[in-house]
Amino acid sequence: MRATVLHAPGDVRFVDVAEPAILKPTDAIIKLSATCICGSDLWPYRGLQPVDAPMHMGHEYCGVVVEVGSAVNTVKPGQFVVGSFCISDNTCPHCRHGFPSSCEQREFMSGAQAPYARVPLADGTLVATENVPDDDLIPSLLATSDVLGTGWYAADAARVQPGMTVAVVGDGAVGLMGVLAAKQMGAERIIAMSRHKPRQELALEYGATDIVTERGPEGAAAVKALTANVGADAVLECVGTNESMHQAIQLARPGAMVGYVGVPHGVELDGQMLFFSQTGMQGGPAPVRRFLPDLMDLVLTKKINPGKVFDLALPLADVAEGYRAMDERRAIKTLLRV
Amino acid sequence: MRATVLHAPGDVRFVDVAEPAILKPTDAIIKLSATCICGSDLWPYRGLQPVDAPMHMGHEYCGVVVEVGSAVNTVKPGQFVVGSFCISDNTCPHCRHGFPSSCEQREFMSGAQAPYARVPLADGTLVATENVPDDDLIPSLLATSDVLGTGWYAADAARVQPGMTVAVVGDGAVGLMGVLAAKQMGAERIIAMSRHKPRQELALEYGATDIVTERGPEGAAAVKALTANVGADAVLECVGTNESMHQAIQLARPGAMVGYVGVPHGVELDGQMLFFSQTGMQGGPAPVRRFLPDLMDLVLTKKINPGKVFDLALPLADVAEGYRAMDERRAIKTLLRV
Repeated sequence: MRATVLHAPGDVRFVDVAEPAILKPTDAIIKLSATCICGSDLWPYRGLQPVDAPMHMGHEYCGVVVEVGSAVNTVKPGQFVVGSFCISDNTCPHCRHGFPSSCEQREFMSGAQAPYARVPLADGTLVATENVPDDDLIPSLLATSDVLGTGWYAADAARVQPGMTVAVVGDGAVGLMGVLAAKQMGAERIIAMSRHKPRQELALEYGATDIVTERGPEGAAAVKALTANVGADAVLECVGTNESMHQAIQLARPGAMVGYVGVPHGVELDGQMLFFSQTGMQGGPAPVRRFLPDLMDLVLTKKINPGKVFDLALPLADVAEGYRAMDERRAIKTLLRV
Repeated sequence: MRATVLHAPGDVRFVDVAEPAILKPTDAIIKLSATCICGSDLWPYRGLQPVDAPMHMGHEYCGVVVEVGSAVNTVKPGQFVVGSFCISDNTCPHCRHGFPSSCEQREFMSGAQAPYARVPLADGTLVATENVPDDDLIPSLLATSDVLGTGWYAADAARVQPGMTVAVVGDGAVGLMGVLAAKQMGAERIIAMSRHKPRQELALEYGATDIVTERGPEGAAAVKALTANVGADAVLECVGTNESMHQAIQLARPGAMVGYVGVPHGVELDGQMLFFSQTGMQGGPAPVRRFLPDLMDLVLTKKINPGKVFDLALPLADVAEGYRAMDERRAIKTLLRV
């Protein structure tokens, strides 16, 4: 089969690779219904993360099971499944505590920008639907695999509660999902920090009540002005740069939590600054598996439409153009049709 | 009157100063029942914080009101009161949100290692008892003013819940109060990181179930061994050095919160380390005023005895010896009799 391999920064190829096969009795093979490109795929694409060897790209996935290993009990061929980008056994103490993204057997999914993919620890990782869903639901179900689950975790880690004023730093796909999540959790006011018109529009559609285009001290002042000089009750940090992390802290009222889900690159936090701001921080790779059944249910009952975050859909063979479009900010997020 | 002034690192003097007077209509003057030396007083005493001008020391206090300004309504002369080391109006949005230590009008108390002291914003800051309490309760009531409230906040910020396994980094007075707080909040297992015999004994008396004497990677390994390789459900950081903060993070299970209350000195946190550890962090100057009524009630009903943390009591005139004893670790915490 042909699949997506990153050979070097900027060099994405759609090339012949071996078909995935069951390697362990706990594996499953799925035929992808659709796949997509993640903001985090851009870190190595842009050379901000080393590419030491060709990387089989893709960690967001949904599809139909075609084969399972001998130890797999909960999913079977023919079922439609979604899994987290974090592979987990769903039975270890960390999984049971709600942090499957720190599973004792954690692996990170790879190779899903392809027609077929191997999913390790299938019983712990995959969630099956009762029936194979209609095609129009596929983008939203695909979104639950990572981008929605990650935005959801930002809101969860920020302890969003009904009635709160929530600020979201980052208007990429994860930030937009953070807006959606905050809305679902009952936030009364959602301030999206965004300076890109199409993203502002989607943020408003997902529940943002205010758009702030300023950044840095001006951005913080604008949020203070919107909140009677108090600051936000909860802040979602959805970028991962030192600037965005400090911006998030500046937007938080004393005692508020910042939920941060952008993989930090070059972030250093000064202890005394954090102390006197009284800002709480929680982040990490999102424990998507914890949220997955509920998120899939919200999609299947059409209560949310996270798939709208895909503003470009391409055939899988055109994956390199998908990367370029996201790198150049022509697309928020690219769906790849298999 | 004579009171405590720090002239330079190591140079504590008990000298003539002006008697405190009402400066604003919201002030109260109290006659101290007792006062004490805080671990944080040792930062400037040890030259780890600059002493640019003579400092009137002391921010932990309880006593009897002798005079109030014209705008003070809730306390009156003759009443016994305790107040937080953070002065707060108890009405601003931050106070109402539970963070009086970030009050819009916040001041830090000073000059309480003295026979009399001025307390600004008396209505918001002071909590009066129904009657003047017996002398034997004074040390414990004094403890609620800062050291107990601060240990309590460490447990609160770490989200201690019944049944949890809690680790406490730091066996100073605040750490010992953290043990007491975790016990009151229902922790099932409390691991005190301590290598000093008298402090270990007090930790056990306050509810610690395990003592770990190792530090660094060995300390982390010891806590892992005690927790089936999982880590603690909540961690209280009660020191404030870079080593202790990183120790705390190493003890936490993924998803656990570290409540940190030692004023950070030289603490730098790497974003990616925090991200992949999935450790949550919340700290800051303790919002003691939020807890004060409940903590005073626990003392008055003799459910807790935080005053045992004072293992040295001296006349106020001997305050310089009190500093020396704490600096040289001959005393955990010095009470000063007025």
